Amino acid sequence: MTALRIDAGLAERLFEELRARTADPPGVTRAAYGEGEEIGHAIVRREAAVLGLDSAVDAAGNLYLTLAGRDPTLPGWIVGSHIDSVPHGGNFDGAAGVFAGLCAVEALITAGIRPRRAVTVMVTRAEESTWFPVSYPGSRAAFGRLPPETLELRRADTGRTLREHMAALGLRPEAVAAGEAFLTPERIHGFVELHIEQGPVLEAVGAPLGLVTGIAGSFRYRKARCLGRTGHSGAVPRGHRQDAVVALAELVVGLEAVWDALEAEGEAATITFGEVATDPALHAFSKVPGEVAFCLDVRSVSEACLDRIRDRLTALAGEIEARRGVRFDFGARTGSTPARLDPGLCGRLAAVADAASIAHLAMPSGAGHDTAVFAAAGVPAAMIFVRNQNGSHNPDEAMRIEDFAAGAEVLARLLADDSTRTG
Amino acid sequence: MTALRIDAGLAERLFEELRARTADPPGVTRAAYGEGEEIGHAIVRREAAVLGLDSAVDAAGNLYLTLAGRDPTLPGWIVGSHIDSVPHGGNFDGAAGVFAGLCAVEALITAGIRPRRAVTVMVTRAEESTWFPVSYPGSRAAFGRLPPETLELRRADTGRTLREHMAALGLRPEAVAAGEAFLTPERIHGFVELHIEQGPVLEAVGAPLGLVTGIAGSFRYRKARCLGRTGHSGAVPRGHRQDAVVALAELVVGLEAVWDALEAEGEAATITFGEVATDPALHAFSKVPGEVAFCLDVRSVSEACLDRIRDRLTALAGEIEARRGVRFDFGARTGSTPARLDPGLCGRLAAVADAASIAHLAMPSGAGHDTAVFAAAGVPAAMIFVRNQNGSHNPDEAMRIEDFAAGAEVLARLLADDSTRTG
Repeated sequence: MTALRIDAGLAERLFEELRARTADPPGVTRAAYGEGEEIGHAIVRREAAVLGLDSAVDAAGNLYLTLAGRDPTLPGWIVGSHIDSVPHGGNFDGAAGVFAGLCAVEALITAGIRPRRAVTVMVTRAEESTWFPVSYPGSRAAFGRLPPETLELRRADTGRTLREHMAALGLRPEAVAAGEAFLTPERIHGFVELHIEQGPVLEAVGAPLGLVTGIAGSFRYRKARCLGRTGHSGAVPRGHRQDAVVALAELVVGLEAVWDALEAEGEAATITFGEVATDPALHAFSKVPGEVAFCLDVRSVSEACLDRIRDRLTALAGEIEARRGVRFDFGARTGSTPARLDPGLCGRLAAVADAASIAHLAMPSGAGHDTAVFAAAGVPAAMIFVRNQNGSHNPDEAMRIEDFAAGAEVLARLLADDSTRTG
Repeated sequence: MTALRIDAGLAERLFEELRARTADPPGVTRAAYGEGEEIGHAIVRREAAVLGLDSAVDAAGNLYLTLAGRDPTLPGWIVGSHIDSVPHGGNFDGAAGVFAGLCAVEALITAGIRPRRAVTVMVTRAEESTWFPVSYPGSRAAFGRLPPETLELRRADTGRTLREHMAALGLRPEAVAAGEAFLTPERIHGFVELHIEQGPVLEAVGAPLGLVTGIAGSFRYRKARCLGRTGHSGAVPRGHRQDAVVALAELVVGLEAVWDALEAEGEAATITFGEVATDPALHAFSKVPGEVAFCLDVRSVSEACLDRIRDRLTALAGEIEARRGVRFDFGARTGSTPARLDPGLCGRLAAVADAASIAHLAMPSGAGHDTAVFAAAGVPAAMIFVRNQNGSHNPDEAMRIEDFAAGAEVLARLLADDSTRTG
């Protein structure tokens, strides 16, 4: 095995440049198909040019930077992630996987390794669905599998459609709508996405890396409301109240009890009401609230578990409606299917990490990732989680550069191992 | 007893003009010390001039329209209410009491009755504490009892202080601060405020009028927050969550249980979380919410009951904080003391209503009213509630003009009765 060394200094410079150019205190904002994401793509394109990689962009704006392999007839590796962020998010969610791909390729080149298979660093678009209410539109479009109606979804902040945002960047939404595929599963040997863990598990167990066994699916209500009846807070007796906030509080607490029961059975899920808000134009401290808006995000690696939670939600809402004279309007449901990752590829990553004496933990991913799209397309897919601090999707997100380098090293060794082993 | 007839047509014209000129769909907006309240005062001043009443304004902008009595040495009657509204509120809350005073005086004049005691229609300022976070600043200032620091409180929408708003209208905040009193309790024979009920009780029992036995006091937290820790909605396992929304939901449901227990004991109270909101700049459907703002309004005619609820709130919050790793920051507490109304005056109103064959119900007021200030100052005080529909503090607030006329008639008969009885 040739010596492979990740240039942590390069990684730090890239992270720092990206952070500085997309800062939006607190944290960073890299809007999907927006300014921040564009800055990220530009940085990656520039670095790829320095490394002499080929560059391509598909109809949806996904970016591909390719180190040619010795045998162009062979299906290639794809490694990468997204580079958009949530509003006021952290610097590492997404970007770590992109820069890990670049650093791994840089390490191969520096070590004089010409891989047998092409290695493509892919930068996907619009992975953070806080912008467009749909999961993985970029990577799904790369396979020509994005439903055309998705292009009419509007970005939460601008109110403009996905189609309009693509067109504004000179991309080809009509080709996306027509199902034009840039990627074909048969031409992909495997897909590996490195990503910060976004949770506290690796930090708690003291392992720098996680190897992901499966990716949670989800169901989501992003525009739900509880509708009651406004009243005077002092003058409406209890039996006459139709209090939307109390009703929603009962739904929240009721779903906590459902979660308790699932946990007791060993089922893994998450249930989150990330946004709740009475209407500032109509609410007042002296009014019984007649309406409250909320979001609900439920995730599990088990489809059956998702179905059970949805059934319980429906039953709970109906019971509260009948008792409190309110109505729950959940609005449109979005979601994604749980994905199983490739045990063979995960095993090879584990072997490579063991060979480099890097500790790792097998774990599910509660968060969704573009990797799920590759897995669903039949591509052998795997994920490397990097230990991180303070969670993600928030300005305090943190990651040690040596943990990042360990992950990128495993990635580089996988690519080199394949090259050596089969070359 | 002289025949007294309330001119319902006059009342309808006044309500309609006020509604049209302060419309802010949905509903009306009459900001305290703002444009809508000024419009209301101008209408009343004009009508009082038509009736030949004397007009006066105190340092805080309360308006007094007086029909002189035959014996100027006697303490006079004051009848009236406020004319401000909550944002997007209804047309009758407050205005009904002001127009009832005008209509009662008009009826006396039309009937040729010159009362023995002066009758003053008072229009108080800023009764709706959604504008300034303080109870009854107008009527308290009329007695020279508004703490000077109150003048530095800011109006919720403009961010300008009460002092600045008074000064902008040419009033005299420095005299308010110095405790200058326009009213002295010894010079007031009695205070009667007519007001829509703001609840569904009279409608449910089929009585047009209520005679109020006591006014609830309150404690309020208008700028409370629950502080947890933001996290990724899929990646943070349950035991690591510090979810502010779930914690608040537990507090809401916990206080509902406290209310259950109080009701079972026959204690009257209301508990309302009128506003709840995660921060639109920081929340997302895919984030465990790290913070949620809320308002809490608790009311009861029993001081002891208020104390018990506050104790339970503190205990509940502490328990939730310990279990969920969150912190409740309740912010400043405001509130008011429960008020007992005058049994003798209430009895006279009941007798007058009985004589006119108008059905009435003795009931407490869950809402606060300026009447509480008069009662606290030692003035014999009473309230007439008028049956209304769809509650108050909302655009759908409704009232039948014949119910209003019944209330104004009782008011007029009280004033005439006193005149006849003692004159």
